[in-house]
Amino acid sequence: MINEGSVRYDFNIDCVANQLRKLNAHRILLQMPDGLKPYALSIASELEKRGFEVLISGSSCYGACDIADVEAQKVKADAIVHFGHYPHGIINTLTNVVFEPVKIILDNLDQLAETLASYLKGKGFKTVGLVANAQHVHDLPKLSQILQRLGIGALIDAETRGLILGCDVSAALSLMEHVDCIVFIGCGYFHPLGIALKADKPVILADPLSMRIEEVTHLVKRVEHVKWSAIYKARKAKVFGVITSLKAGQFNLDLALKAVNLIRKRGLCAYLITADEITWERLASFTEVEAFIVVGCPRIALDNRELFGKPIIDYSELSAILNA
Amino acid sequence: MINEGSVRYDFNIDCVANQLRKLNAHRILLQMPDGLKPYALSIASELEKRGFEVLISGSSCYGACDIADVEAQKVKADAIVHFGHYPHGIINTLTNVVFEPVKIILDNLDQLAETLASYLKGKGFKTVGLVANAQHVHDLPKLSQILQRLGIGALIDAETRGLILGCDVSAALSLMEHVDCIVFIGCGYFHPLGIALKADKPVILADPLSMRIEEVTHLVKRVEHVKWSAIYKARKAKVFGVITSLKAGQFNLDLALKAVNLIRKRGLCAYLITADEITWERLASFTEVEAFIVVGCPRIALDNRELFGKPIIDYSELSAILNA
Repeated sequence: MINEGSVRYDFNIDCVANQLRKLNAHRILLQMPDGLKPYALSIASELEKRGFEVLISGSSCYGACDIADVEAQKVKADAIVHFGHYPHGIINTLTNVVFEPVKIILDNLDQLAETLASYLKGKGFKTVGLVANAQHVHDLPKLSQILQRLGIGALIDAETRGLILGCDVSAALSLMEHVDCIVFIGCGYFHPLGIALKADKPVILADPLSMRIEEVTHLVKRVEHVKWSAIYKARKAKVFGVITSLKAGQFNLDLALKAVNLIRKRGLCAYLITADEITWERLASFTEVEAFIVVGCPRIALDNRELFGKPIIDYSELSAILNA
Repeated sequence: MINEGSVRYDFNIDCVANQLRKLNAHRILLQMPDGLKPYALSIASELEKRGFEVLISGSSCYGACDIADVEAQKVKADAIVHFGHYPHGIINTLTNVVFEPVKIILDNLDQLAETLASYLKGKGFKTVGLVANAQHVHDLPKLSQILQRLGIGALIDAETRGLILGCDVSAALSLMEHVDCIVFIGCGYFHPLGIALKADKPVILADPLSMRIEEVTHLVKRVEHVKWSAIYKARKAKVFGVITSLKAGQFNLDLALKAVNLIRKRGLCAYLITADEITWERLASFTEVEAFIVVGCPRIALDNRELFGKPIIDYSELSAILNA
C-alpha cells in the first residue's frame, strides 16, 4: 500500500511476489504507465526485499496491449510485472507476465455516492450504468449498492464487471437499453470520451479524487468535427503513409499491407511505415506524406488529430476516404 | 540522386539494390535518421521499381549503433538498409544490414577551400587536420589537395579517412601533434563539439552548405560548466537511476549492473532503468530518482543536461561522484 497525499494505491506486492515465485522467476522487469512510474522505485525495493532482482522499464506503456516483451527478452528477465492494467486477451510472445491492475483505495465512497445521487436526481436520471477504469472497477459493486439505497437504480455489465478500456467500451454499450445514462468512475476525459463517442445516452464523469461530477457528452461534438475535417482533407491527399504500431497487442502487419494495397488500387501512393510509438515528433520528418493512416491503437488518431498538422486517420475511417 | 534546393544527395540506390540482390532479400526495412526521412518515400519508390518490397522505419535513428534489428525481425524483413551512417563495429543480431552513408555532392568545393584558406591564413594557421561527418568525408582528399595548392598544409587520418562520429573523434585526435587546428566539414555543432571537448587545438566548423566558417572552441567552456554543475549536484543525491539504452550498439547490461552495485556499495540507493530512447519526457515520471547515470551513448548526458532538470551523468563521470 502506498499513500500519496489523500490517494492510497494497493500494488498488491505480496500477491505479485507469490505469482512470481510460482513462475520460479528471479530477474523481473517492472512495467507501468507513466502515471504510476513515480512509485516504481518503491515497488522495486519491496520486490527486492522479497528476494527478486528488479529492473524497471523506462519506456512508455499505454495499456495491456503494450507489453514490454522485447525489452524483457533483451534484459533476460524471467518475468514481466505489468502494473496498472487488467490483461486483455493479448497473446504474448513472453508467457511470464504477471498483471497487477493497482487498486486505488477510496475512503469516500459514501460521500461520492451521495453527491452523485443528488446530481443524478437533479437531472431526472433514475437508472444508471456504472463503469470504471482499472483503478476503480473493484468499487463498482459497493457503489451500486449505496446508490440503490439512495434511490438510484445502478447496473453493472456482468461480463466485464464494468471495466472500460480506451479501445473497448462494451461494458457501457451492453447496458445502453436499460439505463438513462452511463456513469464513469475515474479521472480524466480519456475513458468517458471513448464511451460518449459510441453511446446514445449521456455519459457522466464522476472523479472520486476531486469529487467532480460532469457530463462529458458535449466533448463528442468537437471530436466529431475534427474527425470529419481530417477525413475531408485526407480525401484530397495523393500520398499516404500507413503506420503500424509495433507494440505487442497492436501490431497488425497484414492489415497495414491491406490498407497500402487498397490505397494503391485507387491509383494513389501509399507507403508502409513502422514505429513502436506513434507520435507527431516521430512522423514530422516524413514531409512527403500528405495523410497518415494508423493501424494500431484506435485512440492514436482520435486523441491526437489536432497535434499532427496533417490529416491522421484511423484504419476504420479509411473507407470514408476511398469511397469519397 | 535527389536534389533538394542546392543540396544533392547520392543515395546510391543501384549499389544498394545490388547488395540486396546478393543477400537474396525481398522485403526490406529502410532505416534513416530524421534528417533523411524527408526522402524516405522517394527512396522506397526507387527500390520498389527495382523489385523489392519496402517498409520504412518511423522510429528514431541516431547512428550506426542504432540498428532497427528488433523492428526488422518483427516485420519479417529479409534485410535492413541503413542510410546515413558508416558501419561502426556493431555486432548485429541481424546479419543482413546494408549500410549506405548517403553522400552530399558539393559543386562548391573550390569556393569552400578558398574561403577556408583565407580564414585560416587570417588566423595564422599553416597546417590543419581535416575531418568530416559521413555525408562529406568522401570530399576530404580533394579538399586537402585544393588547400595545399592554396598554401595550407592539410592532413587526414589514414585509418578513419577523417570520419568523425558523435562518440568517436579519433580521426581528429590522431593528428593533434602535427596540426595547428582541426577543421570539421559538415553542418551543426554536434560533431565539432565532440572534437573540441577532447582536442587541445582550436576546432573550426566549415559548413559547405551555408559556407559559414566558425571556431567552436568557445562552446566547450559552457558544456564543461554544465557538466561540473551536474556532477556537483549528483554528489548530493541519495537515490540514483542507472539507465541503459536498449539500442543494438549501446546496450550494456553488465556495465549498468556494475554501476548499480558501485553506488549501492557506498550505501546509496540505485535502481536499474531500461529504455530504448532516453529522453527527458521518458524519465520525468521517475520522480523518486535524484540523479540519473546513463549507460549507452556518451552524448545523451552531454547534449541534454540542461533539458533534464535533474543531474544526468555519463557512466564515465560516475567515479567523479562516488570518489567525492
